Amino acid sequence: MLDFAELGFDAVPAPDEMIREAAYRRLDSLTKPLGALGRLETLAAQVCAIQQTLEPGIVDPVAIVFAGDHGVADRAVSAYPRAVTREMIRNFLEGGAAINVLARLHGMDLWIVDAGVDGECGSHPRLIGAKIRSGTRDFVEQAAMTREECAQALQHGRRVVEHVTVPRGNTVLLGEMGIGNTAAAALLMHGLSGHPLDRCVGRGTGLDDAGLARKHAVLAAAAARCTPRPEPLDLLREFGGYEIAMLVGALLGAAARRQVILVDGFTATVAAALAARIDRNVLGYCAFGHCSAEIAHRALLEHLEVRPLLDLGMRLGEGSGAALALPVVRSALALFRQMTTFDGAGVSQKLA
Amino acid sequence: MLDFAELGFDAVPAPDEMIREAAYRRLDSLTKPLGALGRLETLAAQVCAIQQTLEPGIVDPVAIVFAGDHGVADRAVSAYPRAVTREMIRNFLEGGAAINVLARLHGMDLWIVDAGVDGECGSHPRLIGAKIRSGTRDFVEQAAMTREECAQALQHGRRVVEHVTVPRGNTVLLGEMGIGNTAAAALLMHGLSGHPLDRCVGRGTGLDDAGLARKHAVLAAAAARCTPRPEPLDLLREFGGYEIAMLVGALLGAAARRQVILVDGFTATVAAALAARIDRNVLGYCAFGHCSAEIAHRALLEHLEVRPLLDLGMRLGEGSGAALALPVVRSALALFRQMTTFDGAGVSQKLA
Repeated sequence: MLDFAELGFDAVPAPDEMIREAAYRRLDSLTKPLGALGRLETLAAQVCAIQQTLEPGIVDPVAIVFAGDHGVADRAVSAYPRAVTREMIRNFLEGGAAINVLARLHGMDLWIVDAGVDGECGSHPRLIGAKIRSGTRDFVEQAAMTREECAQALQHGRRVVEHVTVPRGNTVLLGEMGIGNTAAAALLMHGLSGHPLDRCVGRGTGLDDAGLARKHAVLAAAAARCTPRPEPLDLLREFGGYEIAMLVGALLGAAARRQVILVDGFTATVAAALAARIDRNVLGYCAFGHCSAEIAHRALLEHLEVRPLLDLGMRLGEGSGAALALPVVRSALALFRQMTTFDGAGVSQKLA
Repeated sequence: MLDFAELGFDAVPAPDEMIREAAYRRLDSLTKPLGALGRLETLAAQVCAIQQTLEPGIVDPVAIVFAGDHGVADRAVSAYPRAVTREMIRNFLEGGAAINVLARLHGMDLWIVDAGVDGECGSHPRLIGAKIRSGTRDFVEQAAMTREECAQALQHGRRVVEHVTVPRGNTVLLGEMGIGNTAAAALLMHGLSGHPLDRCVGRGTGLDDAGLARKHAVLAAAAARCTPRPEPLDLLREFGGYEIAMLVGALLGAAARRQVILVDGFTATVAAALAARIDRNVLGYCAFGHCSAEIAHRALLEHLEVRPLLDLGMRLGEGSGAALALPVVRSALALFRQMTTFDGAGVSQKLA
């Protein structure tokens, strides 16, 4: 069994509830009907509680895409060939993928992490080489990673966050790329939430009915290999990917540093669910950018008792849903900081 | 009966379906699973069809807040006193309201239109004086506006759009302010959609249960004054506000000029429903920014068979929900224009 205590992670502090309450009091003084900003109010108060200030702000936000390959991809559980992971890395580095466009548009840095992609990804100023191995092992037959690999991936994830947010960054957007990784994520969700497997398995990048049935059969076989259900970290080792393990490490590391974490789609949310099982306080630092069209994501978000900011039918990963939500977070904070109060504006309050 | 043909509006052309199809073909060539951008794809294709180009863009977007008072507000159908309409105008002009913050953050011009606010609003470079009258008449007793007033308000709305989008603007965000105007909007929705009144009436800025019951009773009395149900323009004259009539004129005018229209919350959507009854093509130019927490808005959007981009529990008006959605529209267009194709990036396509 993997011992988390030996991995050198700092504990995640609870968000500051006193500041959160003060934030709500300020929100109630602004020139709008009480509560009329809806979830933007919750979000602004959350960031206040994270940053321990009533002057919250997003500084130097960074999107990080962790990429890795999966042994199970050889069992045709994806609509796309395994080579696409590495091809998309090149696309990210050349600036032509969705996340590049959104990062440029919304003003965030973008880093790509080779967590365990097949073969060489070359070198590039925006590529962080953190490869554990060229793809995980096929989890139908054996654990996807060794204990050492899993521990190393968790630590790499934390270090990546530390590296890319220096010196001032206070916000990370966490996404992933990896052909086959919704298969891994489905097994992790199954193990973490106890939801039946068929509620955890979806079409990923676009499987047809036959493909979906095949994916389900492959995952059922893998799940049967591990009974009783492993503890979270062993679950990660058995079924996870290197990119997913690094996401978990990144989540724990960013939360320990009181950073705002914008979580992308299904696979990233599975990582958040796993991180939250290791340290419950992590969720207090997370905002969930977008509810994926990947069918299991909604159920997983409900399981975590969180609500995504956007719901636009996307199912792309890469951090795209998180990136799309960044302007919403910025809007919430700007409203919080810049709106005048009833007193200041001389606007009449609600009738008794 | 008001004769629309005499008002000098241009017909709204249908969006360009050939361009829309070409846009979908381009979307399918981009480096992402087919359809993986979800509703961002629909949105990008819509803007292509509106602008008749495969190089769509948002140029010099303008948020317009039409403001007016309502005779019926004297019957305590709002949680806030009637003076708040004028006080909020001052707040808009001083830059401290929610829409000011969002307009600054997301880079849009903001214009405030005095469509029929009680008393004088003073002068300001961002205030357009288009006052028809200091508030409408109480629609429980008589028509809210005269024929001439309603016609004038419709024309003013069109002219405001023409004025503020010169020389290059191709996008308008339409919002409103007016204590009592969800009461007016509820009656308009009732008349337009045939939904029972209790599905059209909500708490507005925050009525309690007693207030909601009072609002319902007031509106039922007003509705009973006009049977059979008037035609759309007469409905507008009977129950509308000057700001709502100007919104209708603005919608028809902007659509006739092939502008992208971002529609705000419940009241603005009622105006869009009315405009669509006058010219069905209007809806093809509209994107609906946000589903308001005002309870009737969701039903109205469903009645129109449209889906809002955001759903964040806001219920503020002022154009705030439209403004918050502008980055989503910009994101959709940037993705459409800047993502590389599978061929260009050398990324493998889907397995057969």
